[in-house]
Amino acid sequence: MKERSDTTNPQSKIQNLKLPIINKSPWVRRVTLTKPTLQDNTADADRLIAALKSDLQTDSVHLDLDLLKQLPDLLRKWEYDLRCILFKDRHRWLLTDVAGVDDSRTFAGLAVDLGTTKVVLRLLDLSDGRTLGETGLDNPQLAVGPDILVRIQFAETPGGLERLNELIITGLNQTIQVLCQSCRLKPQDIHAITVAGNTAMTHLFMGTDPRRIIREPYIPAINMPGILKASDLGIQVNEAARVFIFPNVGSYFGGDLIAGIFFAGLHRQSDTAILVDVGTNAEVVVGNENWLIACAGAAGPALEGGMTKMGMVAGPGVVDRISIHPDTHEFDLHTIDDEPPIGICGSGIIDLAAALFLSEMIDIRGKFVPATCGKHLKKIDGLAHLVVVPADKSATGSELTISQADLDSLIRSKAAMYTILETITQSVGISLKELDSFYVGGTFGAFIDPRAAIAIGMLPDLPLECYKPLGNSSLGGATLALTSVDFLEEIDGIRDRITYLELNVNQEFMNRFSAAKFLPHTNASLFPSVAAMSKKSEPQRCKRRNDSELRRRG
Amino acid sequence: MKERSDTTNPQSKIQNLKLPIINKSPWVRRVTLTKPTLQDNTADADRLIAALKSDLQTDSVHLDLDLLKQLPDLLRKWEYDLRCILFKDRHRWLLTDVAGVDDSRTFAGLAVDLGTTKVVLRLLDLSDGRTLGETGLDNPQLAVGPDILVRIQFAETPGGLERLNELIITGLNQTIQVLCQSCRLKPQDIHAITVAGNTAMTHLFMGTDPRRIIREPYIPAINMPGILKASDLGIQVNEAARVFIFPNVGSYFGGDLIAGIFFAGLHRQSDTAILVDVGTNAEVVVGNENWLIACAGAAGPALEGGMTKMGMVAGPGVVDRISIHPDTHEFDLHTIDDEPPIGICGSGIIDLAAALFLSEMIDIRGKFVPATCGKHLKKIDGLAHLVVVPADKSATGSELTISQADLDSLIRSKAAMYTILETITQSVGISLKELDSFYVGGTFGAFIDPRAAIAIGMLPDLPLECYKPLGNSSLGGATLALTSVDFLEEIDGIRDRITYLELNVNQEFMNRFSAAKFLPHTNASLFPSVAAMSKKSEPQRCKRRNDSELRRRG
Repeated sequence: MKERSDTTNPQSKIQNLKLPIINKSPWVRRVTLTKPTLQDNTADADRLIAALKSDLQTDSVHLDLDLLKQLPDLLRKWEYDLRCILFKDRHRWLLTDVAGVDDSRTFAGLAVDLGTTKVVLRLLDLSDGRTLGETGLDNPQLAVGPDILVRIQFAETPGGLERLNELIITGLNQTIQVLCQSCRLKPQDIHAITVAGNTAMTHLFMGTDPRRIIREPYIPAINMPGILKASDLGIQVNEAARVFIFPNVGSYFGGDLIAGIFFAGLHRQSDTAILVDVGTNAEVVVGNENWLIACAGAAGPALEGGMTKMGMVAGPGVVDRISIHPDTHEFDLHTIDDEPPIGICGSGIIDLAAALFLSEMIDIRGKFVPATCGKHLKKIDGLAHLVVVPADKSATGSELTISQADLDSLIRSKAAMYTILETITQSVGISLKELDSFYVGGTFGAFIDPRAAIAIGMLPDLPLECYKPLGNSSLGGATLALTSVDFLEEIDGIRDRITYLELNVNQEFMNRFSAAKFLPHTNASLFPSVAAMSKKSEPQRCKRRNDSELRRRG
Repeated sequence: MKERSDTTNPQSKIQNLKLPIINKSPWVRRVTLTKPTLQDNTADADRLIAALKSDLQTDSVHLDLDLLKQLPDLLRKWEYDLRCILFKDRHRWLLTDVAGVDDSRTFAGLAVDLGTTKVVLRLLDLSDGRTLGETGLDNPQLAVGPDILVRIQFAETPGGLERLNELIITGLNQTIQVLCQSCRLKPQDIHAITVAGNTAMTHLFMGTDPRRIIREPYIPAINMPGILKASDLGIQVNEAARVFIFPNVGSYFGGDLIAGIFFAGLHRQSDTAILVDVGTNAEVVVGNENWLIACAGAAGPALEGGMTKMGMVAGPGVVDRISIHPDTHEFDLHTIDDEPPIGICGSGIIDLAAALFLSEMIDIRGKFVPATCGKHLKKIDGLAHLVVVPADKSATGSELTISQADLDSLIRSKAAMYTILETITQSVGISLKELDSFYVGGTFGAFIDPRAAIAIGMLPDLPLECYKPLGNSSLGGATLALTSVDFLEEIDGIRDRITYLELNVNQEFMNRFSAAKFLPHTNASLFPSVAAMSKKSEPQRCKRRNDSELRRRG
């Protein structure tokens, strides 16, 4: 766990979209009341509410009973000059606490990325939107099962749902406590929470029945939970704190993706853009301020699990960048923390495949070319392997290799990805070339080198400046929501505007898929820059990245 | 405790204003949903909410997490054909429960008159507005102190407020349990509660600090509590049930009076009407659909406590009607249940005073006239007393008498009442004669004979049909609210329209008061019908009333 600084916050490096620093916070309002007299003897709460209604131009301000009980003494303690902390629930504003103007108390908000595997929490100062601290935890439900399917099945056993709910809530409460301590705050200082997770995680977080999410016709208990009381959910923060849960579009398009769209701002742009997020599932959204079209989930059999199972998780010694000298065919490796190599991660494999292709060590079908591979190539159990790191240079004492089967699998994955991108854009009558911005979310977006992904035809051949990595877009969206009061309407608007495209793996899809199974593509004219890359005499240098930054990424 | 029947429900006898029987309940809606399919796979809660939004023409329907957790199973159990129970909180509708269409479950509402001395609960069927049962209890806070002042002082001691709150909440919970049992319902069947009480009782009910209600500048903690969750208040009914608390205008004009105005419908009438409620305090409201003016509380020193301390509480054997034969000067008494007389209640004293005056046994100053009183008159401890019931006819074995001091006190009270009525109407430039309806609330309104009150100049000389007793108008208003969904807006409208008139006991007031201290008034032309009454040779017959009805009244 680290407090935020420019060097340790990955957002400051990776994301092109800056979170706004707020000058006048919409959540914290200063209110100066006229003191009561015999001539102006309206009640304490009504006096405050009337002032807030006027200030906020609203006709509905609510406060909970607990705060009401303390209010008369608090108003007098601060001599009717206050900071009010508010939460806007569409039509009505909720007053969650009051403080004196000279009171140094911090009003904090918490953004939560509720991942199936990893949960990330970011603490913000609601008065100016600054990040105060950030931390992550493995989803405690991993103890029950690694994936959503197993957990939903467990939820159907007696007490199973309650157990899963308790695991995540307890895990969050413990982490909140530690995170607050590290920022010298108390959980009671947290007044607003935003939570972005997939549909199943959202259900398990609320304790609502998830079993129909995975069964035809795939009906969640709820898509739009909206605003809930933290205490109703068992979250131990300020008694009056509210929790906003990002809505789902359906069983296979969750709040994490809505948060991603919200963060990328697709729905605010007049130019059509695309957002690709490859996490546990692959999800793609295309759109602009007028329309949004999405496909997600089991997005074609070839891609399923393919992108994420590829390679190992990043960590010290993991090869993340590879280039090959075009003449000598020598490998130039970069490992995280410059440790001796122990394995290759996903982005390393994409780099490797691109470099192999550009060096003509694999052909357009992705098959090893023995003539150029030369000494690197060997057979293990009858299957061709390319030795990337010889045994004497590896940290494990064994060779690090990539097999023909690994490459075949990568080709299928990249072909599926490209086919999905083609299918979704063509469904709305535009070509991939017409896209002005290509947002890439998650680990995938944070690590891949777009040039390498273009070289193998995984991503379309757009100018490099079109590619915009988003980092953890789910957390980004949850954070962004805490810097705006009208986020609810905006997010409702995203959700309502999304058309969900059911991907039919039909003949047309399969034809496209077959054409995409070549490097970079059967139709080479779609990738003009790849021809230029392969003619370069310059070696494909690996771009060194900040090690500590890399270490923080999965 | 009695179940409702035509003979035991006092509303059916006393009140001129009928509670509506609802054909189509606004609280209970039948909704038939289309079943989910692969093509229409929106979530369970969103499906139901969308149908309700369309049915109710609203853009906001909320349901609590507890109901959400049960909803998927409930929808399927009832095959998507449901009765929904709703509560409207201004902009948004709250869904509190669902049931099948053939489910015989009753959705009940509870109206509460939260009196300082007595608390009355009425259970309603929300589907048609029918009264299911009614019961009362002595306010358990009487154990702490008989009046609000003592209780507020107790609330300032450590733990005092919590104790007072616990007393009333526990008392209500126990009574709700018994009331529900008698109607073969469970507390969980109660989905909506309306509570009308004075400002201090409302605070003690919520557990909010009442101490500034009685101290200059008289600031309640809250005037408009609006809608709260029953569970937040500790009320043990349905988990999702909501409680509406009638708003106060200020420390001395509480929700019980707003409920009374709402019940009488002053704010709906184009003709100007007046509402007088004499309970623990005396309150007067004059107005119509355009404006309302009110005065309340310590409404002139002479009236304070005067009306209610007068006479004993009604019960078997209490003299409630008295007439005197104009020639023989014989008393014709009526006692409750026709039991031997044990004392005289307030309405009996007003009857007696009127009869004495019309028989010329007291003069226009209210002093005994020995010549006409004759044998009835005697001195006790040097003070003139009139024997109403001789010892041998009394149940106590002692004479029942009224003293000159009692009469003097009555004269002051009636003069104060008339002065207040004159002051408030003149403040808006109308005369008492212009009033079309004169609503009389509470015990006072239920028992007094307007002719007797006019004869002594306590009430203005309006045609008798103008006088409309309201019964328990606070309970009536709380009940009426449960038969309408837009009651909140209507009640807000009443509250916002009220101008509170601070009664200045100035020279003009004192001049009016002095003029009103004669029978019926210094200016006899204000009471033309009284001259006619006294000329009648017919004895002033007591009007027999239904005994069981009388027994139920305080």
